[in-house]
Amino acid sequence: MTVQTKGEKTRTRVIREARKLIVEKGFKNTSINEIIAVTGVKKGAMYFHFANKEELGFSVLLDAKKEFFNFLEVSFVGESPYEKIDHFFLSLLKQQQNAHFVGGCLFGNTALEMSDSNERYANLIKEIFSDWTNILTRLLKEAQLGGQVIGTIDAESLAHTIVAALEGGIMMARVSKKSSNLADCIGVIRSLITV
Amino acid sequence: MTVQTKGEKTRTRVIREARKLIVEKGFKNTSINEIIAVTGVKKGAMYFHFANKEELGFSVLLDAKKEFFNFLEVSFVGESPYEKIDHFFLSLLKQQQNAHFVGGCLFGNTALEMSDSNERYANLIKEIFSDWTNILTRLLKEAQLGGQVIGTIDAESLAHTIVAALEGGIMMARVSKKSSNLADCIGVIRSLITV
Repeated sequence: MTVQTKGEKTRTRVIREARKLIVEKGFKNTSINEIIAVTGVKKGAMYFHFANKEELGFSVLLDAKKEFFNFLEVSFVGESPYEKIDHFFLSLLKQQQNAHFVGGCLFGNTALEMSDSNERYANLIKEIFSDWTNILTRLLKEAQLGGQVIGTIDAESLAHTIVAALEGGIMMARVSKKSSNLADCIGVIRSLITV
Repeated sequence: MTVQTKGEKTRTRVIREARKLIVEKGFKNTSINEIIAVTGVKKGAMYFHFANKEELGFSVLLDAKKEFFNFLEVSFVGESPYEKIDHFFLSLLKQQQNAHFVGGCLFGNTALEMSDSNERYANLIKEIFSDWTNILTRLLKEAQLGGQVIGTIDAESLAHTIVAALEGGIMMARVSKKSSNLADCIGVIRSLITV
């Protein structure tokens, strides 16, 4: 267990509180003053940790990235590559159900809000989607070799499509507040890719 | 051809200019004053047509909805149900390529930006996705009966997943600015659903 200094604790707390506001209202609509008000951190301490809102936003994305890849690591578990993929699908559904489909996916949200206007954010999001797709591609390839996933479609294209369908499914479930939207997507993907 | 009065022309022009700003920057980050500046419309005329920003935003969504269902009507063409679906896929890809993947899908953007905070917008977006899914469900059912699309998956679930994958694919292509992301999704869907 890592012991955090007081400064590190403050930093982490600001990042987590900022993330809640950003998920709820978007980057552009969240102000540093609001985050100061919510956390009770002094202005001086805030600017000691984060030069500006852009930096704070980037730290929020980095923190969420770390959390997501930890989530992937504990989700991709199972005896076979296919079981790993399947367990990940169900973990993702459960995670979104637990959040009552509020907030959706921070990376998807940021992609839509910022990718035309902030290249640094866009590049980080691109990297996250690309790393996620690569992990899935590797497992799909293994599952194809093992004869559990249809082998007629290139694994990378399949991974791209699955990530897109999951992101779209999270969005649709967020609009409708019905878990069936994401559950449907996952069910259909499972049926379509298995041999 | 419908002849528009001067007032109607102003209204339409404001809606179209507001839409460009909203697609680029989101609803919350677009102000009435900016739209006034861009269109050169007098403040009085603006508030004659739209009571407030919320109303203007809703009119933008209604206008975009009308345009999108016109697009669906001219895209779903072909001899067989499957050809209609296929022609729609390619039309959507072409439309996004022509826009250089800037802006993405206004409905998806709005879903992510507003669905947790504005129920009226959320309901309209829900309706648009639902109508779109219904049209696709009907065609998929016909194509299943005709033996062109796999019949083992419920047509409505399949339609939900396709819409999700397209929305997700548009988002991924917007982040990467690579048309291959959306093209990949469409290619994989085509392979997976055809018999």
